[in-house]
Amino acid sequence: MTISDIAKMAGVSSAAVSRYLNGGPLSEQKRAIIREVVEKTGYRPDTTAQTLRTGKVNQVGVIAPSIGSQSVGQLTAGIASELDARNYLLLLGNTELDAQRELGYLTAMQRNHVAGIILLGSYYTPQLAQALKNCSVPVVVTGQRFPDVACVYNDDHTAARELTQRMLEHGRRRIVYIGGSERDDATGIQRREGVQDALRDAGLDGDQLPRICCNAFTVEEGQRCMQELLTRCPFLDGVVCVTDTVAFGAMHALKQAGRQIGRDVGLAGIGDSWAGNVTDPGLATVRFYQKQVGQEAARILLQMLEEKEHGGPVRQVTLGYQVVERGSL
Amino acid sequence: MTISDIAKMAGVSSAAVSRYLNGGPLSEQKRAIIREVVEKTGYRPDTTAQTLRTGKVNQVGVIAPSIGSQSVGQLTAGIASELDARNYLLLLGNTELDAQRELGYLTAMQRNHVAGIILLGSYYTPQLAQALKNCSVPVVVTGQRFPDVACVYNDDHTAARELTQRMLEHGRRRIVYIGGSERDDATGIQRREGVQDALRDAGLDGDQLPRICCNAFTVEEGQRCMQELLTRCPFLDGVVCVTDTVAFGAMHALKQAGRQIGRDVGLAGIGDSWAGNVTDPGLATVRFYQKQVGQEAARILLQMLEEKEHGGPVRQVTLGYQVVERGSL
Repeated sequence: MTISDIAKMAGVSSAAVSRYLNGGPLSEQKRAIIREVVEKTGYRPDTTAQTLRTGKVNQVGVIAPSIGSQSVGQLTAGIASELDARNYLLLLGNTELDAQRELGYLTAMQRNHVAGIILLGSYYTPQLAQALKNCSVPVVVTGQRFPDVACVYNDDHTAARELTQRMLEHGRRRIVYIGGSERDDATGIQRREGVQDALRDAGLDGDQLPRICCNAFTVEEGQRCMQELLTRCPFLDGVVCVTDTVAFGAMHALKQAGRQIGRDVGLAGIGDSWAGNVTDPGLATVRFYQKQVGQEAARILLQMLEEKEHGGPVRQVTLGYQVVERGSL
Repeated sequence: MTISDIAKMAGVSSAAVSRYLNGGPLSEQKRAIIREVVEKTGYRPDTTAQTLRTGKVNQVGVIAPSIGSQSVGQLTAGIASELDARNYLLLLGNTELDAQRELGYLTAMQRNHVAGIILLGSYYTPQLAQALKNCSVPVVVTGQRFPDVACVYNDDHTAARELTQRMLEHGRRRIVYIGGSERDDATGIQRREGVQDALRDAGLDGDQLPRICCNAFTVEEGQRCMQELLTRCPFLDGVVCVTDTVAFGAMHALKQAGRQIGRDVGLAGIGDSWAGNVTDPGLATVRFYQKQVGQEAARILLQMLEEKEHGGPVRQVTLGYQVVERGSL
């Protein structure tokens, strides 16, 4: 499939197709016809030749929920290092967890002719599923396992299960859980189910796990949720939190309530924030390899860009984790 | 100045100039001629009209030293929110503090026809000065005061001075300083001089301030430097650190040495990391408004893009700060 094949099918000149692909001036009518043919055929220009011809460097879009967070920053740094080595530029869309902005970036980036898109996934909605299906360029999702699309994600379920097992090994039996929104499969559902499975493995009733859902992964929310759980379950002796930041808030609330962490009560987060090393006691957690997730996603995307044929199997990659035991357990 | 003026001066067709501006196919020779005329005249296309014509959204380049750090993340989020509201996309270059990559991104982004560039400044070198001077699009620098270019930066000097004054008010007299590389004016020189000025204000010898320079703003480096200073100055009773992360490392080392922070010794960082709230005791620090720095930089850049005339005065903006007193002082 070449530019002139597309031109023939669309009934326009090769120059018009070239202008379409490079974002040059073109009537709305021609643009629409060419777009239809390009989308129908799944045609993708040879990007290396394009770079040589136009002097422009190709771009890859990265859509992220919140560039200010440590895990997103590390993941983006991983993507950037791979793209840089392969001479691609990174077009960044920061959604602040706004689903409309996420869809808007998907559209705008395609219109700006990115070679491909890496989506740092959060909520899976029918609109997003449709937008990903209609995407005219290859897409790789990170952090979530979405159906029918290349993904690189952490094993949230097993990680939460093993972390909770470690807490049980420290003799904790009245464990409670501070979780996240279940609209997010990875952090909401997988981590919660991992905790419950560990309780079942130990002969406890996982369904009865006392739990509360925080509204955001912040210190303040962790503190608020912990205070509420202390009221509901005054005899608790272990707390697992959906993220480290939430756990730092819980730590505050536990100290205020006079509970000695690591002795009266076990506490653990997930994500291995650098700050887990500087609190007193240190925070037990699970380390994910976010930079490597970003690198792996970029490598898969670049590989998809180089494959001339469509229709290969969809690649879904899980990266491992490591439980980090510290004094809080 | 219009496209056809540029075409006449370059001795090429208007279509060629248009292709140049849109990154369409063009011979290297024509590209060079047109680039020369565009740079000489300082011509900038009307970007709104361009968006309507090509369907593409304009892009602004952001070059950052390390996207993984909290302050860079917040600053980038501030830039992104302004650009998003004005329908610009953000092209991100992550340098990992590599001067060659910084220069490389400056070139690549111009070649990819960004409307303007925001540079999160670190080291000011003759090469960078030259590259900024030659830049064919407007540039705004954040975090540093570079000459002859629009800048938005924090008042590092006064902030460090006031923070040290607060420590002196707590009766500390044998203050030491863990600083950063002096190749970085803002964090290296300005903060160190602020500390020294506060000592002089209090009748102490600022020149004799015992100090050490860390190799990176990490917990590990903070710990190493603190251990060294404890050996050199065993009677120290106050420690100011160039960043909060470094201060968390110092906190570790002080605790290991059996010093009670906030009682035997005062400790302060700069930057207001969220983690300063979760350590025990809380870390005294200076809050900068990084998100607002990013927003302000984006607003200034967008204003420069809208001004049709060149040669207005260069805008340099300092944003305020706030000293945050916590238990460590």
